[in-house]
Amino acid sequence: MTNASNGLPFDDIRNLVNAIEGPDAEAIAKTKAHDAGLTKPPGALGRLEQMAEWVAGWQHRYPPRIERPVVAVFAGNHGVVAQGVAAYPQAVTAQMVANFQGGGAAVNQICKTFDLGLKVFELALDHPTRDITQDAALDEADCAATMAYGMEAIEGADLLCIGEMGIGNTTIAAAISHALFGGKPEDWVGPGTGVDSAGLARKADAVRRAVALHRAHLGNPLEVLRRVGGRELAAMTGAVLAARLRNVPVLIDGYVATAASAILFAMRDDALDHCMAAHVSAEPAHRALLEKLRLKPILDLGMRLGEGSGAAMAAGLVKAAVNLHNDMATFESAGVSGKEFLGRLALDVCG
Amino acid sequence: MTNASNGLPFDDIRNLVNAIEGPDAEAIAKTKAHDAGLTKPPGALGRLEQMAEWVAGWQHRYPPRIERPVVAVFAGNHGVVAQGVAAYPQAVTAQMVANFQGGGAAVNQICKTFDLGLKVFELALDHPTRDITQDAALDEADCAATMAYGMEAIEGADLLCIGEMGIGNTTIAAAISHALFGGKPEDWVGPGTGVDSAGLARKADAVRRAVALHRAHLGNPLEVLRRVGGRELAAMTGAVLAARLRNVPVLIDGYVATAASAILFAMRDDALDHCMAAHVSAEPAHRALLEKLRLKPILDLGMRLGEGSGAAMAAGLVKAAVNLHNDMATFESAGVSGKEFLGRLALDVCG
Repeated sequence: MTNASNGLPFDDIRNLVNAIEGPDAEAIAKTKAHDAGLTKPPGALGRLEQMAEWVAGWQHRYPPRIERPVVAVFAGNHGVVAQGVAAYPQAVTAQMVANFQGGGAAVNQICKTFDLGLKVFELALDHPTRDITQDAALDEADCAATMAYGMEAIEGADLLCIGEMGIGNTTIAAAISHALFGGKPEDWVGPGTGVDSAGLARKADAVRRAVALHRAHLGNPLEVLRRVGGRELAAMTGAVLAARLRNVPVLIDGYVATAASAILFAMRDDALDHCMAAHVSAEPAHRALLEKLRLKPILDLGMRLGEGSGAAMAAGLVKAAVNLHNDMATFESAGVSGKEFLGRLALDVCG
Repeated sequence: MTNASNGLPFDDIRNLVNAIEGPDAEAIAKTKAHDAGLTKPPGALGRLEQMAEWVAGWQHRYPPRIERPVVAVFAGNHGVVAQGVAAYPQAVTAQMVANFQGGGAAVNQICKTFDLGLKVFELALDHPTRDITQDAALDEADCAATMAYGMEAIEGADLLCIGEMGIGNTTIAAAISHALFGGKPEDWVGPGTGVDSAGLARKADAVRRAVALHRAHLGNPLEVLRRVGGRELAAMTGAVLAARLRNVPVLIDGYVATAASAILFAMRDDALDHCMAAHVSAEPAHRALLEKLRLKPILDLGMRLGEGSGAAMAAGLVKAAVNLHNDMATFESAGVSGKEFLGRLALDVCG
């Protein structure tokens, strides 16, 4: 294992994180102003109004547009499966990638329903990362290169959904969460795709041993990513960062995608302001992790599939929110009464 | 006022309610059996799996299909606005109907986004119902005829979303809820489209006086509907009943649509088993009413617009759920490992 002790690749990533900026205040102001004239009471579309502002603000343009929504699914394999943490054999990762490519997986049907693009990225499935209970998952050069690969993957998207596939990766998500936010290993593990209670105990034990092994290095979030992370997580971390730099709002899928995003939050607590949590999954630790990241999920449907499925569902709602904002009539155009009521109410009641 | 003392119209409706049946057990069994072979862990799509079963079971066919989803919006006017309960003038009801017909309202944009049909029904807007604080809103013949009109409105739909427009109708919903479920008038009123605190007090007082006036008759849910209800509510009650009789699952929109549906629940507590609550609105009493009806909302987005907007949003998710069920690959077709794991897990862990 090489530690890449000159540290240059991670320095480059830190520089990018330092360079991120806030949303476009003018686009947000234009969104609010146009919303106030739409044929509805102020605030009556609730979170859908916030979504339109969020898209405009982070796209840095007005009106907000969703013309090239992309679900990016990153797949990787994990040496930690040797610890008996997964309900399925590692071969399922590649088989599910083939299923994505063949159009047969859950995420394909959701993308078809809501007219979303789907991109699938295989990350060296034949070369699993090292077992995090024994060694660092990745060396720095490999981790940084994988992040850079994830950064390129978002090319052309104007709304990005990030998701993943990787047998064993809820154990990785738990290790990252435990490393970043403390608590007990048991707080961060769950059934994943469906391990039994003995498997769950093995997951908690693997997380405990991995975090103990790497403890001296876990004050640095990028070290957390390379030591107890994995390739599809590093790629997602890179994709979320690149989206911020290129004015693309992001919908984060489930527990694993959220753990990958948490690396950026730990580096800088405004680093996920361009993200919404698409849903809260049935994986028990996901809700706790979202709370740590101050993200309020859009959907709560008991899903726990990964592969970007929750993010793709939420993308349908975000598309509707943008269409509502852009295409509704205004009081002026529709000749509907009561604008003076609305103005008063905005001041007296709803403000 | 005529009390239509021969009672025949309501007797006909009671006979229809008596005739309703349960879901199609065979269609549900086929849905479960097919779901078990899909390329995902059992249960991993959470509520989306339940939606597929629900559609098949209540459509009484397998596979479930959503080819003609319809959002039916019923509009009516209410004499109770004379009590100062509404934030907008009554003329807004007709203006918003024109907005629906012109394609400019919120529900139009959601229907376009998710490819849903939209039907708008005006119910004698120039002849508001009588003020419920002074008289019964409708006589029995008018109420029953309006229910029958609502029953016809669902023709051709294979998934029905019910919504409404009617200045003053959250006061009507509150009166129905208070009449059916007790509590205090204040428990059931909220800001609606945005009354101020004085308006809110007038709403609670109007509900109190209306329920006191009609108290002797409120043990009969159909009397509740005609005395403290309204035309768009009666039409929705009829539509929900007709949907049950014609094998059409229903998504109920917000507080007013839920109050209309509650009439059937009060007649027979399994009468809404073919319905899902599309969302819980920001109107505070909606959550309490859904709990009385044992309905768990699909979405919680802080919407409070009415006009079927929440139901139409949820219809997008239900379409995705049916596409997932029908179009995903099976383990057999995709050549994915682990079916034996799934079988075991279904018994050991997820059962």
